[in-house]
Amino acid sequence: MLRPASIRFAPAIALAALFGLGEVGAQTQTQAQTQTSVDPAGNAAVIDDIVTGSRVLADFGVLDGFGHVSARDPNNPNHFLMSRSLAPALVTAGDIMEFDLDGNAVDARGRALFLERFIHAEIYKARPDVMGVVHTHSPNVIPFTISQVPLRAVFHNAAFLAAGAPVWDIRSDFGETDMLVRNPAIGRSLAQTLGDKSVVLMRGHGDVAVGPAVRMAVFRAYYTDVNARLQSQAVALGGLLNFLTPGEGAKADAVNFAVIDRIWNLWKMRVTTTLAK
Amino acid sequence: MLRPASIRFAPAIALAALFGLGEVGAQTQTQAQTQTSVDPAGNAAVIDDIVTGSRVLADFGVLDGFGHVSARDPNNPNHFLMSRSLAPALVTAGDIMEFDLDGNAVDARGRALFLERFIHAEIYKARPDVMGVVHTHSPNVIPFTISQVPLRAVFHNAAFLAAGAPVWDIRSDFGETDMLVRNPAIGRSLAQTLGDKSVVLMRGHGDVAVGPAVRMAVFRAYYTDVNARLQSQAVALGGLLNFLTPGEGAKADAVNFAVIDRIWNLWKMRVTTTLAK
Amino acid sequence: MLRPASIRFAPAIALAALFGLGEVGAQTQTQAQTQTSVDPAGNAAVIDDIVTGSRVLADFGVLDGFGHVSARDPNNPNHFLMSRSLAPALVTAGDIMEFDLDGNAVDARGRALFLERFIHAEIYKARPDVMGVVHTHSPNVIPFTISQVPLRAVFHNAAFLAAGAPVWDIRSDFGETDMLVRNPAIGRSLAQTLGDKSVVLMRGHGDVAVGPAVRMAVFRAYYTDVNARLQSQAVALGGLLNFLTPGEGAKADAVNFAVIDRIWNLWKMRVTTTLAK
Amino acid sequence: MLRPASIRFAPAIALAALFGLGEVGAQTQTQAQTQTSVDPAGNAAVIDDIVTGSRVLADFGVLDGFGHVSARDPNNPNHFLMSRSLAPALVTAGDIMEFDLDGNAVDARGRALFLERFIHAEIYKARPDVMGVVHTHSPNVIPFTISQVPLRAVFHNAAFLAAGAPVWDIRSDFGETDMLVRNPAIGRSLAQTLGDKSVVLMRGHGDVAVGPAVRMAVFRAYYTDVNARLQSQAVALGGLLNFLTPGEGAKADAVNFAVIDRIWNLWKMRVTTTLAK
Repeated sequence: MLRPASIRFAPAIALAALFGLGEVGAQTQTQAQTQTSVDPAGNAAVIDDIVTGSRVLADFGVLDGFGHVSARDPNNPNHFLMSRSLAPALVTAGDIMEFDLDGNAVDARGRALFLERFIHAEIYKARPDVMGVVHTHSPNVIPFTISQVPLRAVFHNAAFLAAGAPVWDIRSDFGETDMLVRNPAIGRSLAQTLGDKSVVLMRGHGDVAVGPAVRMAVFRAYYTDVNARLQSQAVALGGLLNFLTPGEGAKADAVNFAVIDRIWNLWKMRVTTTLAK
Repeated sequence: MLRPASIRFAPAIALAALFGLGEVGAQTQTQAQTQTSVDPAGNAAVIDDIVTGSRVLADFGVLDGFGHVSARDPNNPNHFLMSRSLAPALVTAGDIMEFDLDGNAVDARGRALFLERFIHAEIYKARPDVMGVVHTHSPNVIPFTISQVPLRAVFHNAAFLAAGAPVWDIRSDFGETDMLVRNPAIGRSLAQTLGDKSVVLMRGHGDVAVGPAVRMAVFRAYYTDVNARLQSQAVALGGLLNFLTPGEGAKADAVNFAVIDRIWNLWKMRVTTTLAK
Repeated sequence: MLRPASIRFAPAIALAALFGLGEVGAQTQTQAQTQTSVDPAGNAAVIDDIVTGSRVLADFGVLDGFGHVSARDPNNPNHFLMSRSLAPALVTAGDIMEFDLDGNAVDARGRALFLERFIHAEIYKARPDVMGVVHTHSPNVIPFTISQVPLRAVFHNAAFLAAGAPVWDIRSDFGETDMLVRNPAIGRSLAQTLGDKSVVLMRGHGDVAVGPAVRMAVFRAYYTDVNARLQSQAVALGGLLNFLTPGEGAKADAVNFAVIDRIWNLWKMRVTTTLAK
Repeated sequence: MLRPASIRFAPAIALAALFGLGEVGAQTQTQAQTQTSVDPAGNAAVIDDIVTGSRVLADFGVLDGFGHVSARDPNNPNHFLMSRSLAPALVTAGDIMEFDLDGNAVDARGRALFLERFIHAEIYKARPDVMGVVHTHSPNVIPFTISQVPLRAVFHNAAFLAAGAPVWDIRSDFGETDMLVRNPAIGRSLAQTLGDKSVVLMRGHGDVAVGPAVRMAVFRAYYTDVNARLQSQAVALGGLLNFLTPGEGAKADAVNFAVIDRIWNLWKMRVTTTLAK
């Protein structure tokens, strides 16, 4: 990791606050404020979003023991930040590591790495606009990954799906595998299928959501799962369905950006409350 | 806000009680009782219902980070009360603001407003009988907003649906939009489709439930969601379904009024318990 | 209520235990043990089962703010015990009242009564073998009450359904009503449709489960809801289904009696833990 | 139980840790470390996995009041370890007993036994590779046990299903029964249908998952339930589905072994947190 000083202290505050350790928290805060002033990169905020996003998605059941949230390094567009191999519900700021766009850890120090970090590396390489990536085994989405029914935008919170959400099948390029994105070539294939979209479905596996910020990637991962559930219910009603048009989707998605703090603040509080119990 | 004195103290009690702050609560209660005696408008009770309703619907997942609950001002039928822009689960009495029926804040003081306050304004304008309005992205209802299958009353707690629940499609009058009720004209169109019904569905968006009291609007928002889920399950069984007739609906809905306190007291306790944890 | 002395103290133990009031609990226990020795009727145990059953079914979502659990008075087969009008999640032993089989309260003392107590009264009258009755708006069952698909036994825990679960439609005998069992005549009609079965479905309303003990009635109310959910999922898979035969049902239901304490103890602990939080 | 010394102390640590009994925990730990050094069998670790697995599956709703988790005795392949008759959510290390492969308790001491221990006994007898067995009434799986639609692997976490999951119908060999595996002959029939697979479905009852370790059996019981839910949703979408091939299944299941600690640690923490509340 590049800036160990600030990162080492920032999570101490977060955890102290989460677990109601008033005394310790107060002391650490002083240290951290000092450290923050020497954190020109502003990584602490992005790392906090990775931690919050990981826990929120775990809390909602979009992530279970697997899956991961990453952010492009705000200081170095050729690097990204991501947890060591760990269940998302347990990720803390101290677990976040730095990687280059070939998926190599900058300073591994013997920590276990996610096998599928190439999902993130290759998408950051192919899509300069993407600042956050989320990979999940989103339960409501998985049925669409093995179905011929395309996932489409049912409501405005999932407006980003109105542009389409392609399905990537690892078997098309790589034959019978263990289904994992375990090297750069497989990651590249996935990134190509994603194209310029916000979400790509992975056959028999899950999905990847991307965004111009970690928060938007988390938001999209969440609402992709919700939309899939609602579309499944709508399909079961029978008959023709009235989806958002691409034009509506583009306009409505712009609003999602404008209001994301409202739901992000709620989610952050939800995770904090859960942890404090 | 019109009556800051009573409103400033009432939430202090509520919060003290919710968080088990015995000492502070006891002190504040004395102040508040004094204040209540100079609150001829009785707004405190209605505001408490807005807060409780917002939190109950969030707790049940009918509301997520978005949506809102409002009440017609009991003192001034040309005004209504509604939170500043905030996730419903976080609304407290101190967040409630006052609006006129064009959606203008009486005393904004720089607070952020809900973009879709025109839903409420135009319904209060068109429907003098309505005292409470709830707008949600009710997850079980959304599939019906994009389907040709009409939402119908499956059981007596949702008897108010037996009169019908029309679907409003913003595209019919306004073409491709960002899907939001962001001005009076769009609100008027929605209110016209609602007509004299209790619930209107919004295509690709959610629904609006109204009632002769905030509690009834919240009750209807909740049971609209439950009814939609049960109807979806019933449709999936296949074959003809035996819905409530309009006659049964009218009679059964009258009973809902009579017993609402029983479930409201439970809901209020549920929200209080959740917060106190 | 007939034996106020024992009843007054028994709930004090229960509540003290539930809320971890060690000191008070210890003191009260001494009193209660004394009282128990003068409680020849043994009503305290049955009342505890009504309270536990009400809260368990509320905790599982089988009951929401409405519905009720009753027991035939173990001392007087022409009376039954049931809460005053109250949400099931809030019922305590002190809320239990005594009724005759015409639905009259023995000692009302101004307390509000459940409008639908005639469900219980008329079933106890018609079925001497029944010792416990549960009425719910069981969400997974309601779809079957309006469908032509009969509810059938999917697995052995719901073996009691293998004998059939008839659907009662209030409209057949009484035309367009408010859907409620609000007098003895309507209760009688319902009891006739129940016949010698364990469960009767109420069109557009819910169901009633009965048993040779309160615990069995609660067990059946719970597994009727579970079975309905599983049958709905099985129907949605398509094709022929392989239900329990009546012969299997009779044999398997006998085992349910033998093992009910295992799950009852779990449920009681679950409710206790929830309350203690 | 064979080695009471180590077993008597090991659960004391576990419980002290779970309930945050710092002092007691610290003292007991010293004792236990001493004891561990005289526990050549290493049963404590396996027993802890049985307890954790029972509670995790109960927490997820895969187990309700019924079902059981067992392990082959790591010291004696002709014995297995399993709780006395108890709801899985309540199992502690002190409840684990030892059985021979005919289902006889080695040292019953009057404790109640699970009627269906023959499921475990006969599978351990027939399958030397199996070290852990889980029997559940897995709610999402039960519909497949009465359907003609075979359960198939929808995603890589359930890769072990790609080899097939046969359905065993007790009625085929034994006619109309109470549906229980209540003797060795019935257990043998079930084990034969299981064959060399990882999961066998029991018509109108539930399923059995096995593995080369308790953790893998628990993992498979959990993901069998998840897979069944996802496959049900996929079937409801209509059209052809793209399941994992047997080749993909074999490769992907090998990865599940490699990463099981990541999710097991999460689950163990989840159970611990739940208990500590």
